[in-house]
Amino acid sequence: MNYFSSNFKLGILGGGQLGKMMLYDTRKFDIQTYVLDASDEAPCKIACNTFVKGDLLDYDTVYNFGKQVDLLTFEIENVNVDALEALEKEGLSVYPSSKTLRIIQNKATQKLFYKDHDIPTADFTRFAYLSEIEDTIRNGGLQFPFVWKAAQFGYDGNGVKVVRTFDDLKELPKGECIAETMIPFKNELAVIVARNQKGEVKTYPVVEMEFHPEANQVEYVICPARIDTDVAAKAQEIALKISNAFNHVGLLAVEMFQTESDEILVNEVAPRPHNSGHHTIESSYTSQFEQHLRAILNLPLGKTDSKVGGIMVNLVGAEGYSGDVIYKNIEAIMQMDGVTPHIYGKKQTRPFRKMGHVTIVNEDINTARQIAEQVKNTVKVISK
Amino acid sequence: MNYFSSNFKLGILGGGQLGKMMLYDTRKFDIQTYVLDASDEAPCKIACNTFVKGDLLDYDTVYNFGKQVDLLTFEIENVNVDALEALEKEGLSVYPSSKTLRIIQNKATQKLFYKDHDIPTADFTRFAYLSEIEDTIRNGGLQFPFVWKAAQFGYDGNGVKVVRTFDDLKELPKGECIAETMIPFKNELAVIVARNQKGEVKTYPVVEMEFHPEANQVEYVICPARIDTDVAAKAQEIALKISNAFNHVGLLAVEMFQTESDEILVNEVAPRPHNSGHHTIESSYTSQFEQHLRAILNLPLGKTDSKVGGIMVNLVGAEGYSGDVIYKNIEAIMQMDGVTPHIYGKKQTRPFRKMGHVTIVNEDINTARQIAEQVKNTVKVISK
Repeated sequence: MNYFSSNFKLGILGGGQLGKMMLYDTRKFDIQTYVLDASDEAPCKIACNTFVKGDLLDYDTVYNFGKQVDLLTFEIENVNVDALEALEKEGLSVYPSSKTLRIIQNKATQKLFYKDHDIPTADFTRFAYLSEIEDTIRNGGLQFPFVWKAAQFGYDGNGVKVVRTFDDLKELPKGECIAETMIPFKNELAVIVARNQKGEVKTYPVVEMEFHPEANQVEYVICPARIDTDVAAKAQEIALKISNAFNHVGLLAVEMFQTESDEILVNEVAPRPHNSGHHTIESSYTSQFEQHLRAILNLPLGKTDSKVGGIMVNLVGAEGYSGDVIYKNIEAIMQMDGVTPHIYGKKQTRPFRKMGHVTIVNEDINTARQIAEQVKNTVKVISK
Repeated sequence: MNYFSSNFKLGILGGGQLGKMMLYDTRKFDIQTYVLDASDEAPCKIACNTFVKGDLLDYDTVYNFGKQVDLLTFEIENVNVDALEALEKEGLSVYPSSKTLRIIQNKATQKLFYKDHDIPTADFTRFAYLSEIEDTIRNGGLQFPFVWKAAQFGYDGNGVKVVRTFDDLKELPKGECIAETMIPFKNELAVIVARNQKGEVKTYPVVEMEFHPEANQVEYVICPARIDTDVAAKAQEIALKISNAFNHVGLLAVEMFQTESDEILVNEVAPRPHNSGHHTIESSYTSQFEQHLRAILNLPLGKTDSKVGGIMVNLVGAEGYSGDVIYKNIEAIMQMDGVTPHIYGKKQTRPFRKMGHVTIVNEDINTARQIAEQVKNTVKVISK
């Protein structure tokens, strides 16, 4: 298949910001793009060749969309997997595969997959209903505190809660879930792995998520992570092992904990471009979006080394502001050394809504870190 | 004016590949984009918010298009300048200005501007008609050989010819032209200058155009140029002087000759992103396209240093092939270290048609140069 001739049709499930950033790189390869999303306001609408409005969780919608394209990928996990499986059976290339996606969509299945493949992860128990957790605690089968996670449809910290008392259970959704041992960790790390059909595999450098000391919110994604090289090597090795275990095709973002004793435990994975790889647009030889395309199209993978150090700061809506968005002091941060804002184009802000991100690049990662803090302290997402 | 809020409308005259690459960066800033172009197949059509089909040289078309937007720029020089001037008088921001564009559009006027501003350039004589050249030679006022240049509408080597005999004059267009002294030069160099309304100015590193030893065609654009630092400094100084002389707002690409005696002579300028700056997408802290936007929007200019060395190779149609394009061995070049193809999406190739470009980046410019040669020897733009 000659991808570089305007006739190859790539379908993307999901029309969000990740898809939009991926679409820019499809242009370099001159690929025709089809996007399916339920919203008329989907960011991808402006950047694809053909936009189809429809429900990503509806079997027929996804199936019919898939019949229009030569290869199907996704930028969001919450899509109808049965339709993907049917399309695969009829010969369509779906990357990452429906099998992988089915395992990842359910956190309990995902954790069991790690256990089966000897991949280190925190101990856990699966429960079909929330009520079973309470029974198990009363029977002495589970102790406070633990981490509750919804098995399905959690995102951005939704669907995760530290449970310390019976009271903490009260507000939680009633469905399938897991209870995970609380792990005291030093660092939250992530590694993005790219793998193509031929089985060529490359890992990006390990990144570090630096948390706000009080708010317990990720403030900075830092590449490379400021950790020992042997810890970094271990993290990359584990990420590779997962990618191979899935026979993965595409990007796989692996989130991990570095424990107090320098063990690496896998937290969860995402089979697509990921927030922890946005800095690669500016800092890496190959952006994660170009790499995802290279991987799913079975093209040679690009170099994953960094040209310079990179830090990503999320731009989220400030507390106390809702309505038509204003990016206060954005010109001030653009004056800083190596700073590029990425505004996602959402018209309305609300507290903690993800409105964009800012990348800071510098040859010296410590200088980048200082500038990132200035950026964080300067720009503010407010409303009119 | 808050550019970052979806409501700001940028108009671009010309819907070609330069415009398309500029449009990607408008997304980061969340700007609404309007593009005017005569062709339904214009590359920008897919990437802008609103595409208007129309003749760029028609006064009413350009004027009416301008009335729809908040700021007007262009990605091609051949547009109706009278309309731009009228729009400016009515208060529209047009960057670069109609005044600058009028001077640059005509090569005779451009050369006179250099003379007036004490900017070094090869000696020349202006002629209203080609026939005047012949008379002047016969009267002893001009000697062979010299360089003939059409005053208007030349591009990509069109409109330029070395004239050695009366016979060489026969096929040339009859209109306004200049005859320029032939300069024996060591290198062809270029510097891109960015300047915003506030007068903040930054220059990119000097690039070098390496020619094929026989074909006399640019093969590689190399950044940084492999020249003495004092020659580079002189080239940047002259480029800055021109930008200031124009009171320029936006990018100005300045093409220059380095003579045998290390003099710098200005050849010509382009008031927009330029082929000599394509490598900046991968190699610079700020791509030329983002920089043009920062400049015309009066935002702080981005850092113009290089992260790594960069080389650009044009992908042009091979001789002997016309028709539906195939990029032979493109996967082979994508396997090479730091290589990114940019395919422009033209469906038909023909000999020497510009079909795309390839960027090669590496920490070491000499290694990049070796890989660039492998790229050049491997990929071939042919037809089915």
